[in-house]
Order: sequence, then C-alpha cells, then structure tokens
Amino acid sequence: MIKVTKFGGSSLANAEQFKKVADIILADESRRYVVPSAPGKRFAEDVKVTDMLYACYKAAISGQEFEKKFDEIKERYNGIIRELGLDLSLDKEYDAIEAGFKGRAGRDYAASRGEFLNGIILAKYIGYEFVDAAEVVFFNEDGSFNAAMTNQAVRDRLENIERAVIPGFYGSTPNDTIKTFSRGGSDITGSIVAAAVKADLYENWTDVSGFLVADPRIIKNPAVINTITYKELRELSYMGATVLHEDAIFPVRKEGIPINIKNTNAPEDPGTMIVESTSKKPEHIITGIAGKKGFSAVNIEKDMMNSEIGFGRKVLEQFEKNGLSFEHMPSGIDTMTVIVQQSEFESKEQEVLAGIHRNTSPDSIEIEAGLALIAVVGRAMKSAKGTAFRIFEALAKSDVNVKMIDQGSSELNIIIGVHEEEFEKALQAIYSAFVK
Amino acid sequence: MIKVTKFGGSSLANAEQFKKVADIILADESRRYVVPSAPGKRFAEDVKVTDMLYACYKAAISGQEFEKKFDEIKERYNGIIRELGLDLSLDKEYDAIEAGFKGRAGRDYAASRGEFLNGIILAKYIGYEFVDAAEVVFFNEDGSFNAAMTNQAVRDRLENIERAVIPGFYGSTPNDTIKTFSRGGSDITGSIVAAAVKADLYENWTDVSGFLVADPRIIKNPAVINTITYKELRELSYMGATVLHEDAIFPVRKEGIPINIKNTNAPEDPGTMIVESTSKKPEHIITGIAGKKGFSAVNIEKDMMNSEIGFGRKVLEQFEKNGLSFEHMPSGIDTMTVIVQQSEFESKEQEVLAGIHRNTSPDSIEIEAGLALIAVVGRAMKSAKGTAFRIFEALAKSDVNVKMIDQGSSELNIIIGVHEEEFEKALQAIYSAFVK
Repeated sequence: MIKVTKFGGSSLANAEQFKKVADIILADESRRYVVPSAPGKRFAEDVKVTDMLYACYKAAISGQEFEKKFDEIKERYNGIIRELGLDLSLDKEYDAIEAGFKGRAGRDYAASRGEFLNGIILAKYIGYEFVDAAEVVFFNEDGSFNAAMTNQAVRDRLENIERAVIPGFYGSTPNDTIKTFSRGGSDITGSIVAAAVKADLYENWTDVSGFLVADPRIIKNPAVINTITYKELRELSYMGATVLHEDAIFPVRKEGIPINIKNTNAPEDPGTMIVESTSKKPEHIITGIAGKKGFSAVNIEKDMMNSEIGFGRKVLEQFEKNGLSFEHMPSGIDTMTVIVQQSEFESKEQEVLAGIHRNTSPDSIEIEAGLALIAVVGRAMKSAKGTAFRIFEALAKSDVNVKMIDQGSSELNIIIGVHEEEFEKALQAIYSAFVK
Repeated sequence: MIKVTKFGGSSLANAEQFKKVADIILADESRRYVVPSAPGKRFAEDVKVTDMLYACYKAAISGQEFEKKFDEIKERYNGIIRELGLDLSLDKEYDAIEAGFKGRAGRDYAASRGEFLNGIILAKYIGYEFVDAAEVVFFNEDGSFNAAMTNQAVRDRLENIERAVIPGFYGSTPNDTIKTFSRGGSDITGSIVAAAVKADLYENWTDVSGFLVADPRIIKNPAVINTITYKELRELSYMGATVLHEDAIFPVRKEGIPINIKNTNAPEDPGTMIVESTSKKPEHIITGIAGKKGFSAVNIEKDMMNSEIGFGRKVLEQFEKNGLSFEHMPSGIDTMTVIVQQSEFESKEQEVLAGIHRNTSPDSIEIEAGLALIAVVGRAMKSAKGTAFRIFEALAKSDVNVKMIDQGSSELNIIIGVHEEEFEKALQAIYSAFVK
C-alpha cells in the first residue's frame, strides 16, 4: 500500500505544525511519499514565505537592497529548524538562492525556493530522502507540463527509494531553469507523484476537514461532504465552489486513485473522499450546493419556434460568432432563454441581438440581467424521488422567485436561476431543506 | 357592436338544435353575421352530413348508383325544414348538386354542400340574408387562402347587409371551382368574417362550455378555462390540447378581436374567452395542462462543455442536418439533453449520434426513449411564487419520477419530462394540486 501525502502551507507554517505533520506521516507507514508546500501564514496578518520570496526577488532585480528581506526568510526557516531541534544548516542553500536572485534566475525560481527549503527540512525531520522536484518534474519548451517525461522520471527515481519528500509547486524546463505550476501548485505535484507511483491513495492535507456542502461565507458552519465523485466535484467547482484545481485532479483520476482531503489540525476527522464512483449514498441526498452571480438571460419568443428546424442552432450561432459560450438554454413553448455570463455578454449584447433578429426573425427578444445560478448537485438525486419538490418547497417558503429551472435527464443536478438579491436566501433555503 | 357567431356541426344537427341556435342569435341583436357548419351527428353512431356527401360523391364518380345515398342526405335537410315548419324547398339546389356530382365538380365541392344547404335553411329560419361563401371567400391558384381579396369581398358585400348567414368551410378558386379549408373548417370562415367586418367579438358555439384545463380523457370532468390568452392557447395546443386550429385564430388575432367559445346546449355558461392580453387572473394560477407521449432524450456528457464555445451549436447542427427539430435542450453542468420526437428521431438516431461523436467528441451519449412531456401553462405563474413547488410536491406525493425540468425566464410555462407510464398519474397529480 502506498499513500502519497501532500501538505498545504498552513500545515507547515511553523515548527508546531511540522510536528503535527510528522506525527501524521509516521503514524502510517504507507505514507511513503510526501509533497510539502512552502510555509504558509502562522496567523491572519502573517505573510506567506512564497510572497516574501517574490518581494525579495523583485527588490533584487531592481537593484534595491534585498539582503534584509532575505534575512527574514532565512529566519523563518532557521526558526523552524531550531524549534524542531534539528542538526541542519541551510547556509549552502541560502547562498545558492542569493546567487540565483542576483543572477536573475527568474520569478518562478524565487517562488519555488519556499517549497525547496521546506522539503529539505521536512525530509531531515522525518528521516525521509529529499528528492528535488527539479530533477523529476518537467515542463516543455512552450511552458506546458510534460506528463510523459515526468511520469517516467518520478517512477525511475522513486523505484529504489522507500520514503521520500518531493517539494511541490515546481519543476524544470528543457532550458534548465525552474518553472512553477501556474495554479493549483503543490496539489498538482502531489497528484503527479501519486499517479506515477500508482499510489493507492492521494492524501491532501489542509486546514479544513474536507469539502463543505455549501459556501461557508453564506452558510454558517456547513456540513462536510463525506464522499464525492470527480464528476460532482467538477460540477460544484464549475459553479464556484473552492475545491481542487482541475489540473490537480486529472493525473490521479486518470489512474483511478481516490483523493482524501484531510485536516492536519484534526487528523482524526475522516475528511472528504473524492472517488471515481461509489455505492455510498451521500448523507443528505444532495452532495453539495454552489452558485454564482453575474448572469444575464436572453429571452427569445417566436410563435412555432419548436417546429422550425434549425431555430436553436441559428440562435446559438450568434453567441458563438461573438466568442461567447452559453451556460444554459431552457425553453418553453415558443420561448427560449439563453443564459450567459453578464461580464462577457455586456459588450457584445447588441451584436448578438442584431444577429438573432436578422437570422431568426423572432417576435421579441428581451434581456434580463442580474441573475444568479445555483446548482444543486448529487448522485443520489436520480433515485430519490421528490428532490425537485424539496428544493422548490424550500424556495417557495423562503419567498424566492424562481426565474429559471433546468434539469436534464442525467438528473445529477438541478440548475436554478434566481434574482441576484435572492441568491443568499435561496442557498440558505436549499441547504436547510436537505442538511438542516 | 357586431358579433360574428359560428355554430359547429352538433349545434345544427337537427331541428331541435336549430331552434336553440335561433334563440341564441335572436336573443342578441349584435349577432349580425352567422357562420354555420354542416349538420353533425345527432347521436353517437350517427353519420355527419359531410361524410355522407364524401361517400355519395365517391360513388357518383365511380359510376356507382348514388341516388339512394343522396336521398338520405336530402332527407336530413328536408326533415329539418319540415320540423321547423319552414316554407322552403331546396329542390333546385339538390338538382344542381346532383349535376355537380355527375359533372365531377370535385370532392371539395361535394363536401362544401353540407354547409351551403345548412346556411340556406338557417337564413330562412332566422330571417337573415344568405350569402354564398363562394362569392366572398377566395383561394389562390396554388390553393392557399387569398386573405386580401377575401377581406375586401366580405367587407364590400356585408357593408349593406344588416344581417347575414355565410356558410363556413369553403370558398372559390380563380378557376371557379369550390375549395374547402383543409383543417379548422368553419372556424376559419368565422374568423375571416369577424376580421373583415371588424367585429367586436367572434363567438364560436360548440357543444362544450369552453376549453378545459386538462384533457377530459385523462382528468374526470375538468374545470373550464375562463379566460385564456392567444399565447397560452398556442402553448396548450402545441402540447396536444384540442383547441381551435391556428388558422382559425390568426385572422381575428391580427385584428385584436377576442374569441368566445360557447356551448349551444348551455348558452348561459360563460364559456372561454380567448384574448390577446388580460389583467384577469386565471382562477387556479395555472391556465391549463397538456402533454404528449412519444419523446426521446439524447443525453450528452462532456467535461467542461459549458466553457467550449460552439458546443451547443455543434450538437444541434447534427439534428438539423438530419431534418429534425428539437423540443427542448435542458442542461446541467457538463451534461446536455436534447429532447426530440421519438417517431421522427428513430430512423435517424445513428446518423445523429455519429455526427455528434465526430463533431464534439463527447465523453458519452445515451438515448432514453419512452418519455412524455407535460406543459403547465399559465400567465399568472410569473407572479405567483411557489408554483414550481406545488407542481413538484404533487408529483413527489404521487411518486412520479421527474426526468426533466425546463423553465425559461418567460415563466409562462414549466415543461416536465416523465416516463410515459407515469404520464396520466402526473397529469392527474398536477391538476389536483391546482384545481382540486
């Protein structure tokens, strides 16, 4: 059994957190490969080491005095080393980094040193071998990730290493410079390593006990999602839920490796399991709720449109011509609504409307802005009759006006359109109806 | 004030019905122009005069003996004349018709004689002038209706006639033959006359007290719709409700003339008013429910489809290429469902699927047949919050599995997809929830 465990910045922000992380890793010997982030914030007003590195590098290349800034960074690491009581000096690494700053090794190089140094400390602390990500994670000339080459290199390198720490966030280019992942950072490295070694589980340790059923900025103390499928995750993420970046999911998903989101500060919590498919029913019929504001509806009316072959295609073509994707296209009889993102649509609305007029001669077109979309997502909704009823009962009782409803035969989610002002109220109503 | 009143076949099936019709017309002196149908069935197993005429003509042109058949037709009319105690002989007309049959005046000519003769009798009975529709209703060479010419002719002719009977169903061609309307029959003539004389009201007298909220074959004694807008009527009719044919609505709708559906056998009933727009709320929030079986759903799944510009267009294009119109296209996130008529789709499904595969590379496509669509229609639904809740509550309590939901921002109707076997149950549930 092999587990790849990734730890986020807050899990490694100081010596105290390092101790928790070490306890977690050493409690389960299958936790053989560890991917650390750079030290995150220790308290709300603190600065992440990565941001300190960016600032320091910026000063260095503008010819400003940067040594004092760099001393602060060194002190973050030295403090951790001291408190952990490690017999470790990073002076050689600090010198190399300073030289890199002076030699314009790049912003990515600067930022990546946070993970690099943290990896060395963690490896030493838990007695694992340190493997520099620059030697096993590769990018192409064009900056894209080279999956095949990385996969091979990680596998070859780790084949004979029982236990290793591989810092997240970065790799190297064919030009032998350092490059970081643009988004998703260490989550991606962890996923890549897990896929390469064909891990049984990819553990992603953070400072929350899993993904939440709803946005905690809107719903107070929302419940944690126990088990979620990749598909459900994608759906919630598309509708604005903060979850793992798609690029961090793809490598393990391809290999059928589940992901477990865990909380470093409450390791006994089961967290959230992300799986390809499961027979486990979610606790609340719905798996999650997410939503976004900022949509516009284009309402088109034309007598007999349903029997006009090509009508829908002609309408959508006008959006496409203007480089717009559409979110949904619910329709009645003789009416069709195209839901688009307001910010993208605004500057092109007149071109789109003129195009629709010219090509489909509608009886009327009307634009309604200020809509919010809510997605109620759940694999159990298909077999649970009455889900729509419970949703609309909740909305009716909360006096929310439902502007649009869309549910296809997949029955994995229901999309609801409401006025933006009723968005929070609607989310709360649906959450309470299913989760209490 | 001018009312144009059209009477259906059952309203003029025998002398007793003629007396009711006369009472109705003479009770309101604004009922100046009357459009009669041919005598309909007097009892369930009876034969409509129009069908007798078709059979008689068929016999005549195949050289068979048809005089006995024609005698039966004459006896239908002579019986009415006798029972009404009229001093009227139609012998001259009968002779002309017989000559027309022998001279191959056409199926349309034959059929039209039912209205023609009924018109003469009614005019005599109520003391109105008889105006042959052949002299005022015109078709073009290509068989289409000549609205402009008819409009002018009706107006010119009726300008100096205070009260007239104009038989429905037929007109004449530039070739001086008789042609009938293909569908909608006398309803169309009534509408045309009402529009031409700029009537204040077009009364359409039948044997029911108006349009029903739901199909009486499924719902026992459904309530009558009090007031319905043209748009609502169109929607219910599209979804299978038996109402006036579109061609019968168009002429009066264009002139803003309301239609009143009335019951000859219960003239005190208010019937159904069909109007362009009204501030009158329907009694039950919903105006009507209608539905049809025989739909298939094509479910398409693809990760990130929402952000792919042109995805929807490419899918719909494949249906268009195969000459298929689609009914609805509800979508979730990463999923899209295209609802089509099963009968049209079946023979082309593999071409459509292959086209979608080639052009959009979906993750999966699945076809689900045997769906029924239900439209819940109502202008009051927009302002009544909680309509969706009541619909889905009713469906949930009746254990109906909702396969699809579609409601655009127009909010004038909600479309629901269910399994065909649950169609009747679903209709009954929704009806009971709103109407009791």
